Amino acid sequence: MSTRLLLLGAGRSASALIDYLLRHAPTEDWQLTVADVQPSHLAPVLAAHAPYARAVAFDVHDETLLDALVAGADIVISMLPALWHGAVAQACLRHRRHLATASYVSEEIRALDAEARAAGVTLLMECGLDPGLDHMSAMRVLHEVRARGGRVTAFRSYCGGLLAPGSEGDNPWRYKFTWNPRNVVLAGQGTAKYVEDGHPRYIPYQQLFARTETLEVPGYGTFEGYANRDSLSYQTPYGLEGIPTMLRGTLRRPGYCAAWHALVRLGLTDDTARLGNSADLTWAALVESYLPAGGTGPALPARLASYLGLSPTGPELERLHWLGLFTDTPVGLADATPAQLLERLLTARWALQPGDQDMIVMQHQFGYELAGQAYRATSSLVVLGDVQGPTAMAKTVGLPLGMAVRRLAQGQLPQRGVVIPTLPDLYEPILRELEQEYEIRFVEEKQAVGQPAALSR
Amino acid sequence: MSTRLLLLGAGRSASALIDYLLRHAPTEDWQLTVADVQPSHLAPVLAAHAPYARAVAFDVHDETLLDALVAGADIVISMLPALWHGAVAQACLRHRRHLATASYVSEEIRALDAEARAAGVTLLMECGLDPGLDHMSAMRVLHEVRARGGRVTAFRSYCGGLLAPGSEGDNPWRYKFTWNPRNVVLAGQGTAKYVEDGHPRYIPYQQLFARTETLEVPGYGTFEGYANRDSLSYQTPYGLEGIPTMLRGTLRRPGYCAAWHALVRLGLTDDTARLGNSADLTWAALVESYLPAGGTGPALPARLASYLGLSPTGPELERLHWLGLFTDTPVGLADATPAQLLERLLTARWALQPGDQDMIVMQHQFGYELAGQAYRATSSLVVLGDVQGPTAMAKTVGLPLGMAVRRLAQGQLPQRGVVIPTLPDLYEPILRELEQEYEIRFVEEKQAVGQPAALSR
Repeated sequence: MSTRLLLLGAGRSASALIDYLLRHAPTEDWQLTVADVQPSHLAPVLAAHAPYARAVAFDVHDETLLDALVAGADIVISMLPALWHGAVAQACLRHRRHLATASYVSEEIRALDAEARAAGVTLLMECGLDPGLDHMSAMRVLHEVRARGGRVTAFRSYCGGLLAPGSEGDNPWRYKFTWNPRNVVLAGQGTAKYVEDGHPRYIPYQQLFARTETLEVPGYGTFEGYANRDSLSYQTPYGLEGIPTMLRGTLRRPGYCAAWHALVRLGLTDDTARLGNSADLTWAALVESYLPAGGTGPALPARLASYLGLSPTGPELERLHWLGLFTDTPVGLADATPAQLLERLLTARWALQPGDQDMIVMQHQFGYELAGQAYRATSSLVVLGDVQGPTAMAKTVGLPLGMAVRRLAQGQLPQRGVVIPTLPDLYEPILRELEQEYEIRFVEEKQAVGQPAALSR
Repeated sequence: MSTRLLLLGAGRSASALIDYLLRHAPTEDWQLTVADVQPSHLAPVLAAHAPYARAVAFDVHDETLLDALVAGADIVISMLPALWHGAVAQACLRHRRHLATASYVSEEIRALDAEARAAGVTLLMECGLDPGLDHMSAMRVLHEVRARGGRVTAFRSYCGGLLAPGSEGDNPWRYKFTWNPRNVVLAGQGTAKYVEDGHPRYIPYQQLFARTETLEVPGYGTFEGYANRDSLSYQTPYGLEGIPTMLRGTLRRPGYCAAWHALVRLGLTDDTARLGNSADLTWAALVESYLPAGGTGPALPARLASYLGLSPTGPELERLHWLGLFTDTPVGLADATPAQLLERLLTARWALQPGDQDMIVMQHQFGYELAGQAYRATSSLVVLGDVQGPTAMAKTVGLPLGMAVRRLAQGQLPQRGVVIPTLPDLYEPILRELEQEYEIRFVEEKQAVGQPAALSR
């Protein structure tokens, strides 16, 4: 009997996932239903796979239709925004269907664990890129070190969705949006926490983009990383309780963070207060309103530079100029928060253009001790988007998720309740398939660095 | 027939209000019910007024009791935390009872305006100190200038709840809590907005305490003011639409804001992220965790000063030392936000002690043009707490509220719906009674400053 798969949400980031599911549907005996708010764009693709694929129009607010679609499936895959996953998981529990997503385990999902176990339902979460591939590739190294009797003393993990070098052009940020713009604008608000050499470390938002670390990825040059909000939540899932150093971070190209820090200090990332502005306020006038009174003398960019203690001809100001922060362009939204205005500006300036290639970069850095010797190891991944096909983001989010669903459909994932891909039975075949079928491959390097005492003071 | 008054909430800040209501109950023919979670502390006071006053135990979560109490009253006075005023107002509408509070008009209350008008109910809000006395005293000057044909070009208004000079002792902050500590810790988060010389001005939180203004209050020395979050919301209620300069601010003694700015920059006022800390973490270790790694070399205070670009022997570090930021005192709360930890520390260090006298300071600054001449005027108020009686805060919050209730009970306030005390019929008798009966008096000064063109460029 066929396995009935239901995919909820089929935006651009789902393209590689749909390709994967269609590719395997005939041999795996899958019947695929793709439910999307605008299913018409899927028609050409699905028509070529008519015997085992169909599209339906679906509005996520329609609870009755959601219930009917889930009832008619065996496995539900959701690429909807994460905020909907509680409702989708509830529907899956009502009908005892498995769920797979690329989203974080929210408190709402975590609370369903016992109920899902009792119902024999798997809620397979965090199976995309980050979270997803990060867990899989890190756990492969961690399990191997432990299997050989080693002790892990440091783990740093970075990931970024960036531009391929050939697509950076004259964009001094070397960045465009390949994922949710709002998340990029609001990134890091609050307090970042991690551990270093056994000491807890906190970085408040207003310092976050000034306290970056630099790292190299062979063949792709230098990157800078800023700390994620909570680096510690994976200590237990990774079996790293009490590890002296643990940090998770986000990658950007050098210079991005210092310029973003200027935007933070200026105040343009606040999302809590509406400014009462008109939509035809210009960007130059908005920036002027943030400077102390007395707007005469030097031109606006020079006064901004002076206010922030930056060079008027330096790399931060160059990036702010490039965004159009000193122009007469209208901000375009009335009574908006600064963050909403900034997101609107960036969405215009940082939009992927036809022909642009994106790039995913991930790097784990491990420190460990083994037989009286200290080692450092790295595991690095670079994936480029296809010029005529899916982006690197779509591939690295969609393919691991599709492969995880395939394992689930084959009955090779016996775990029930909330599951994330830290299990060898799940990540090993997925990492192997990514390498063999898609050339998505982590490069692992290691070197001895001296006596353990030097690392674990 | 008696007028039945119901007072909800009788904490320390309600003492002057209760005194006022009891003083006038016999002559005004009031029956007062005081409903509080711990009514026993009211027994001695109310026993002396037994014929016309009683206390009842009241838990604000008990909706049935709230409904019964409101049904049995003619006017409801609420000193509950503002978040409860929506529920109280709903009960008042159900039973067609008037409501009086010292709290801001929330969106929730504003939405009840039409319903209250239709029901013949007055929702008399913002009748305390700030909001309350600020409206009354400002409107008296504004109405007078307008009555004489003048045009107001600038309005700045500051208020602060501080310590009387004789109670400052060796506290370098010259500050203790006389109102909600949490509000003080979280003050200013977001973006402050005001207008100056016709230009909108925005100050992000991380700059707010570095961009203060200095002002003098005759006989009481120098103060500094930081901008409130929204200085513009009273443009319309005050009839000041289009005014070139308008700012509302909060007063502190000089030096407070620079030291608070250091706490903000360090990250200790963030309330969005929990730190995962243990309760026995020391304050010194917590501060250490915020500094960049490499905690060796100079002592912690010197490294903190260096990190923030402050003098290690300067006034900011002196204030941080005084708080105990570099001691082995445990933070005392596990897995708390930085703001929660800071509030706990400050609540211990900034507690009013027996014998401490508090002080309310308010100053309005006006610029206006009249008959071809530009003027500046100020209206200043200083109120000291009674050593053996109510605090200045309790007096300035409670007395205007009690006086407003008295007007309402006398039928001298015909307005229905949501009302704030910008009406001469309301503020004139209240300001007069405050002056004549309580020596709470605004000192008004004015001077000609030149031709109008100099002010209204």
